[in-house]
Amino acid sequence: MALWGGRFSEDTAKNVTEFSESVSYDKRLYKFDVLGSKAHSAMLASCGIIPQETANLITKELDVIEKRIDDGDFEFKAELEDIHMHIESALIEALGDEGARVHTARSRNDQVALDVRMYVKSEITELIAGIKDFQKALLSQCERNGDAILPGFTHLQHAQPVLFAHHLLAYVEMLGRDVERLESCYTRVDYLPLGSGALAGSTLPIDREFVREKLGFSKITRNSMDTVADRDYMIELLNALATFGIHVSRLSEDVILWCSQEFNFVELSDAFCTGSSLMPQKKNPDIAEISRGKSARIIGSLMTMLTLCKGLPLTYNRDLQEDKEPLFDAIDTAKKILSVFPQMMLEMEVNRENMLEAASDPALMATDVAEKLVELNVPFRNAHHRVGAFVKWCKDNNKELNEVSLKEMQITIPEANEEFLTLFSPVSSVEKRQCFGGTAPEQVKEQIEFWNNFLTD
Amino acid sequence: MALWGGRFSEDTAKNVTEFSESVSYDKRLYKFDVLGSKAHSAMLASCGIIPQETANLITKELDVIEKRIDDGDFEFKAELEDIHMHIESALIEALGDEGARVHTARSRNDQVALDVRMYVKSEITELIAGIKDFQKALLSQCERNGDAILPGFTHLQHAQPVLFAHHLLAYVEMLGRDVERLESCYTRVDYLPLGSGALAGSTLPIDREFVREKLGFSKITRNSMDTVADRDYMIELLNALATFGIHVSRLSEDVILWCSQEFNFVELSDAFCTGSSLMPQKKNPDIAEISRGKSARIIGSLMTMLTLCKGLPLTYNRDLQEDKEPLFDAIDTAKKILSVFPQMMLEMEVNRENMLEAASDPALMATDVAEKLVELNVPFRNAHHRVGAFVKWCKDNNKELNEVSLKEMQITIPEANEEFLTLFSPVSSVEKRQCFGGTAPEQVKEQIEFWNNFLTD
Amino acid sequence: MALWGGRFSEDTAKNVTEFSESVSYDKRLYKFDVLGSKAHSAMLASCGIIPQETANLITKELDVIEKRIDDGDFEFKAELEDIHMHIESALIEALGDEGARVHTARSRNDQVALDVRMYVKSEITELIAGIKDFQKALLSQCERNGDAILPGFTHLQHAQPVLFAHHLLAYVEMLGRDVERLESCYTRVDYLPLGSGALAGSTLPIDREFVREKLGFSKITRNSMDTVADRDYMIELLNALATFGIHVSRLSEDVILWCSQEFNFVELSDAFCTGSSLMPQKKNPDIAEISRGKSARIIGSLMTMLTLCKGLPLTYNRDLQEDKEPLFDAIDTAKKILSVFPQMMLEMEVNRENMLEAASDPALMATDVAEKLVELNVPFRNAHHRVGAFVKWCKDNNKELNEVSLKEMQITIPEANEEFLTLFSPVSSVEKRQCFGGTAPEQVKEQIEFWNNFLTD
Amino acid sequence: MALWGGRFSEDTAKNVTEFSESVSYDKRLYKFDVLGSKAHSAMLASCGIIPQETANLITKELDVIEKRIDDGDFEFKAELEDIHMHIESALIEALGDEGARVHTARSRNDQVALDVRMYVKSEITELIAGIKDFQKALLSQCERNGDAILPGFTHLQHAQPVLFAHHLLAYVEMLGRDVERLESCYTRVDYLPLGSGALAGSTLPIDREFVREKLGFSKITRNSMDTVADRDYMIELLNALATFGIHVSRLSEDVILWCSQEFNFVELSDAFCTGSSLMPQKKNPDIAEISRGKSARIIGSLMTMLTLCKGLPLTYNRDLQEDKEPLFDAIDTAKKILSVFPQMMLEMEVNRENMLEAASDPALMATDVAEKLVELNVPFRNAHHRVGAFVKWCKDNNKELNEVSLKEMQITIPEANEEFLTLFSPVSSVEKRQCFGGTAPEQVKEQIEFWNNFLTD
Repeated sequence: MALWGGRFSEDTAKNVTEFSESVSYDKRLYKFDVLGSKAHSAMLASCGIIPQETANLITKELDVIEKRIDDGDFEFKAELEDIHMHIESALIEALGDEGARVHTARSRNDQVALDVRMYVKSEITELIAGIKDFQKALLSQCERNGDAILPGFTHLQHAQPVLFAHHLLAYVEMLGRDVERLESCYTRVDYLPLGSGALAGSTLPIDREFVREKLGFSKITRNSMDTVADRDYMIELLNALATFGIHVSRLSEDVILWCSQEFNFVELSDAFCTGSSLMPQKKNPDIAEISRGKSARIIGSLMTMLTLCKGLPLTYNRDLQEDKEPLFDAIDTAKKILSVFPQMMLEMEVNRENMLEAASDPALMATDVAEKLVELNVPFRNAHHRVGAFVKWCKDNNKELNEVSLKEMQITIPEANEEFLTLFSPVSSVEKRQCFGGTAPEQVKEQIEFWNNFLTD
Repeated sequence: MALWGGRFSEDTAKNVTEFSESVSYDKRLYKFDVLGSKAHSAMLASCGIIPQETANLITKELDVIEKRIDDGDFEFKAELEDIHMHIESALIEALGDEGARVHTARSRNDQVALDVRMYVKSEITELIAGIKDFQKALLSQCERNGDAILPGFTHLQHAQPVLFAHHLLAYVEMLGRDVERLESCYTRVDYLPLGSGALAGSTLPIDREFVREKLGFSKITRNSMDTVADRDYMIELLNALATFGIHVSRLSEDVILWCSQEFNFVELSDAFCTGSSLMPQKKNPDIAEISRGKSARIIGSLMTMLTLCKGLPLTYNRDLQEDKEPLFDAIDTAKKILSVFPQMMLEMEVNRENMLEAASDPALMATDVAEKLVELNVPFRNAHHRVGAFVKWCKDNNKELNEVSLKEMQITIPEANEEFLTLFSPVSSVEKRQCFGGTAPEQVKEQIEFWNNFLTD
Repeated sequence: MALWGGRFSEDTAKNVTEFSESVSYDKRLYKFDVLGSKAHSAMLASCGIIPQETANLITKELDVIEKRIDDGDFEFKAELEDIHMHIESALIEALGDEGARVHTARSRNDQVALDVRMYVKSEITELIAGIKDFQKALLSQCERNGDAILPGFTHLQHAQPVLFAHHLLAYVEMLGRDVERLESCYTRVDYLPLGSGALAGSTLPIDREFVREKLGFSKITRNSMDTVADRDYMIELLNALATFGIHVSRLSEDVILWCSQEFNFVELSDAFCTGSSLMPQKKNPDIAEISRGKSARIIGSLMTMLTLCKGLPLTYNRDLQEDKEPLFDAIDTAKKILSVFPQMMLEMEVNRENMLEAASDPALMATDVAEKLVELNVPFRNAHHRVGAFVKWCKDNNKELNEVSLKEMQITIPEANEEFLTLFSPVSSVEKRQCFGGTAPEQVKEQIEFWNNFLTD
Repeated sequence: MALWGGRFSEDTAKNVTEFSESVSYDKRLYKFDVLGSKAHSAMLASCGIIPQETANLITKELDVIEKRIDDGDFEFKAELEDIHMHIESALIEALGDEGARVHTARSRNDQVALDVRMYVKSEITELIAGIKDFQKALLSQCERNGDAILPGFTHLQHAQPVLFAHHLLAYVEMLGRDVERLESCYTRVDYLPLGSGALAGSTLPIDREFVREKLGFSKITRNSMDTVADRDYMIELLNALATFGIHVSRLSEDVILWCSQEFNFVELSDAFCTGSSLMPQKKNPDIAEISRGKSARIIGSLMTMLTLCKGLPLTYNRDLQEDKEPLFDAIDTAKKILSVFPQMMLEMEVNRENMLEAASDPALMATDVAEKLVELNVPFRNAHHRVGAFVKWCKDNNKELNEVSLKEMQITIPEANEEFLTLFSPVSSVEKRQCFGGTAPEQVKEQIEFWNNFLTD
């Protein structure tokens, strides 16, 4: 033993308790734990497993306990491990043997599953509302700057002119899919787990349908072992949030680019920027940057959850206690982003002149020239080559595409006629993209209407 | 320049070409590329953008090209970058100017999006069929060993006896959710992207509805910029497959445990095991191990995809070319697992006696004792304490729980009566868990029927 | 605006402030911030940039501030963003213009970099000490149960008998590499960043060498832009901790298996286990399970950090503020594991009889038989086949390998002689593995000595 | 069985074989397998375990086999599982019993460990050479454009002017750390694993030191169980490569920004760009984009490896076969990037005028004004506020900072004198940052020399 320094010889119990407690973070579930215990007690009474009077007492005392927690008048201690033990202990302390009946036909395994599912359902509902408000903010910006035109980019190179509203609508689409994914996930959360016991159900004559109805679940889980081992819905939610985070990160990247001195396409309101501790002139798009950073955090939480679950045997393993912090953190992170980003987008000022000037680069209209040649029956690939040669000719001769004479153009594009010289306006270029989903003003207007209708339903 | 060793001074073009080519892996999309080009040409003709005759020629030649690729009679070369350029080049080579019309009103951006979406739809359909076969294999095993009983585990500790079929049904549930998630994902893949052009739509009078109908998509994408930038459905698919992988990894862990000399609950058929190059006696559950390992690989692919997309500005960026290999690898990995794992489960032999012996550990029935006390009106928490004391008494006195006399039991459980001595049979313990989703034979039978019906629909 | 619900119209400033603040978590850096500001002020005075008297005042007041934070007598508020602004503000509040001189020739960018590097150096030192204590605990267990023998497993199948001490020494090796990796990482943290300013250095005549010496850094960073953008050392540390986590997860898996009723190789002290809220008989290896789970969490933090940094342009971007929480969480997680796991291993009781019985499975000695044949000049691959046939013969005839007569053995192994019948003792099997790094007692003893010497240096 | 479609009833063996084979990817290890088997045979002979003549025969035949594989004259088949079995089988086919002696005192577990360690050592050496060439390419660019000045960015906002060479040197630093990390990793790879057997060493009198010396390893692994289970060095290598990938991704982001029409700071040579299939004018920085994308892929491989290893019990588990593809892919990916990126950087043309014009934004010199005030004894924080007010005054009055008269400046900066009006030159601003690691030309020159010396050593 000489070698052994005895560094951890004292306070063992305390170390262990602190290591394994979860109440420091799972206490946020208390309202759902109270709700669940009320429904459970009512069911026990209804099935004759405990007296109705006991159920009434328990329900009343649970309200008292909830109120105490609301008011910060409730002591949490690591020895009582988790929120569930805290509330049951408080019940027993208040009601004695009557309180000791609440945990009948229930295990912490299905109790935790219940609380978390109720919590997740509630959070998904809030998240959906928040994302829809985000869509509304973008739509409002679309309407305010509906006819602003900027260069559409591929490879961060000027590609073709697009309506600013069309650009923002791309994000409205992404957020729309985020809502859909959250709704899909919800249907898989919306199963009552209570009644699964530790893993095998209960020998007592419980009534799961009673509880399902009471707590507003759509369905009841079908296999008790799966129920206490399942974390799928958390993974699915975290993936939906990670995807949302990616959308936010892409919009952030766009906004950060637009705010740069080089692009100078937008100006953010001061409230969403900070200065520098050293450089007096700085105005930084912090909210966009932090949000882009936070998207990495949600991805990390998803990875934690996936790695956590991999390779665990059935059924419940204590590893799964580590599911809560990444779950909570991902939800909180998404909600934090939703608490600031939509408003930032709503208040963003658009430098329409700068956008239009950039979009007036005549090279952006090169595709239009090629497509005009197609109208003259030139096979597209040949048309593409001719316009490529024309672009090169212009470069070699130090001219912009819209600075050439018809003669000059015909050197590389023999089919060109006067109309070709008029193709270099970004406004008319945009107007021509009339196919469904294209950037023409009518199409964009239609999509704005589609989303406005969707969001007012 | 003296410092500079010129290591890469030669063969530049070759290096760059090899670095950026994708045909080595995207050639698997060729059938979808052919299908897409046929529908696109038909639409161009129908809209009067190209002659009907041209469309006919293109269609015919595409069949020839497809046949050549089928037959391995088609040369792929890095200079032609990707499968799309290969096929277009072959068309032009064969048809001259008529072939040069196929790429009219189309960009590789929306063409790739189309091919991949068709590919993913097809793969999801196969994956769902494969997972359902996996469920059938498990159900078949359930029926063959429907009344085998083994210990249910929590924390890898004996918890309560359960039916072997109940244990397997937990995995049937998980796989059922995997199918649901794939179906959800499918609805978000099932949008026609073609017609979005490079990013802004086309100036030519195309008809996206025509193509949608022709190719069997349910809907049309609503925003051209979003369409060429969107990789959400790949992330969603990879997450669904990662979750499937986790399910497989958990079942693998169970199987590996069951195969160990210590558990000895099952025997795998030799076809699914390998020996050791050194140790002559070994019979290893390799398929389960490799599958557990492969689940990590899908998670890695998901991580690649998420990180890839994070922070990219709109619209298409060439980074996104790196989406295909993780996508393909995750799908292939899932399909490989499905090519062996179900059959391994189907052929697995169950050592029913060993399972039952393990489940006969009377400590597994401790909960039943506590719940029996509840029936005698003892508050559950008190009942739990009494049984805990009883377990301790037995341990201190070196007796199994079912080796005590009633008197001895009453030392710690004063309320105990003769019936209590009969509670230690795993068979009757299982039979008592009659609540919906519990492990009682009737419940299990009901679930087997539920799934059989589901799978024959 | 009708569409726009105004959900976030109030309290904007507050939302934004709360979104972007970091003091809630970076306040833990306060001691390093104080240390850094003292050294910086001393340097500024030494270089004549501020009066010596000012530096003295600042130093004195920083001590006061540190004491106030120590004592919980310091108010943190989101408006002051981070710990650095809090301390500078408190200085200015106390000292007026003299306090306002502390931030001369410094930016938060290099200040944060300094604080975090000092923090990380300190934490690495603690982590190394903790891991070495972990090694000591394992060595102590090796010494206590030095001659216990258990089956060595591959594929979770019995492979060959090994000393229990040999098994634990495998973990001592892993932890030894963890220490090495932390030391490697330390050398790359140990560079003074201060003096890099916001990104370009300072126009004032500062003396970085003075500060380096004062704060005990080994070297000075060579490029100011790299310095404020660099997060490599965090990634390297997180990867080292993730690898440590994996080691812990593997040991946890072993311990959890050993605690199962099926293995029953060890017994953990009650202090490191918990019971069940439902099942009175349960004693769960929670610490091992939670630790295995926590290893996923460190992996998640590493992923967050990697994804966070990917694709950021130079130099500092506000995304990087999100580096701290995964960094802190990974360090805290590793330290938490170190606060309980070593002691659990130290106090673990070994069921030597059960281990030995399992190791006495004669199939474990099959390799020894093959290697004995090699001594008789049988080519190994042929020897391997003969022993394989022998194993099969035994199985077909329902005999253990050590239950056959010499005659019977010679059916499949013609070369066998009497000595072959004595090969089935796990004790002598272990003794024969005398090569360096093998499991023979002499080898194991040598390794224990190696590590004891290493750890007492 | 009616339910069971029999989808996988045929070709079982084939499915299983294909599922578990690894030769399709591990064949690349053949040269190391040959080398290892030669050294192993020589040792066996030297120890008298096999005849010297046998060893000679084996060595000779291994050369033949290697040559056949070199020449593509060797058939690989899934039934022989991996490269090790292929080579041993070929040996036995050629040499009969003499070939059957090569696997004496060896298991595939330590054989694979040997081959992969030799492979990784070789690859690390190549990677280091490649990264040093990358550094040389950057240094060459530094020398060619040593005095170009561009805006240094924080938050993608103009911060302070810096030398272009200073900016590139930041990447030289990062790559320098990558080299260091690879070297650190190398020391942990450089241990001979052979002699560990399947997990417990060998009963035969082998000489590991002999093999170590023959194969050029620095040390011998100390614990046989750890040796066959250890994948740490792969994780460490993948993390080093992931960090390298992040550096590349950041440089890619810079290059992509610089290539945009908005920045227009550089021009890439045509060889490193591609055009668009639709838009004739496009010239896209594909290599930078794909490289940025590929960094995600390395991160995914690291994630696979970490998740793969988590929670595996000792010792070897077949899951670990899945280590090779992510290992190979990450190495290949890094080498591919190194095959093109350095040359792209070397050939990149710099638009010095555009850079200088952007850096001439007088707001970039705001810090210089504040630091000039510090020289006049104004406390820095006050100086910062005054310059902030000055910036605001200029904005309100629509003037650039260098367009004001002294009088106007004194409105917000009373201490200003004539010298203040001269502070707005980016050239002199850069020259003033003379501290070690700052952007002043002398400092930058010193660093270039440091690295040139380092790289010519």
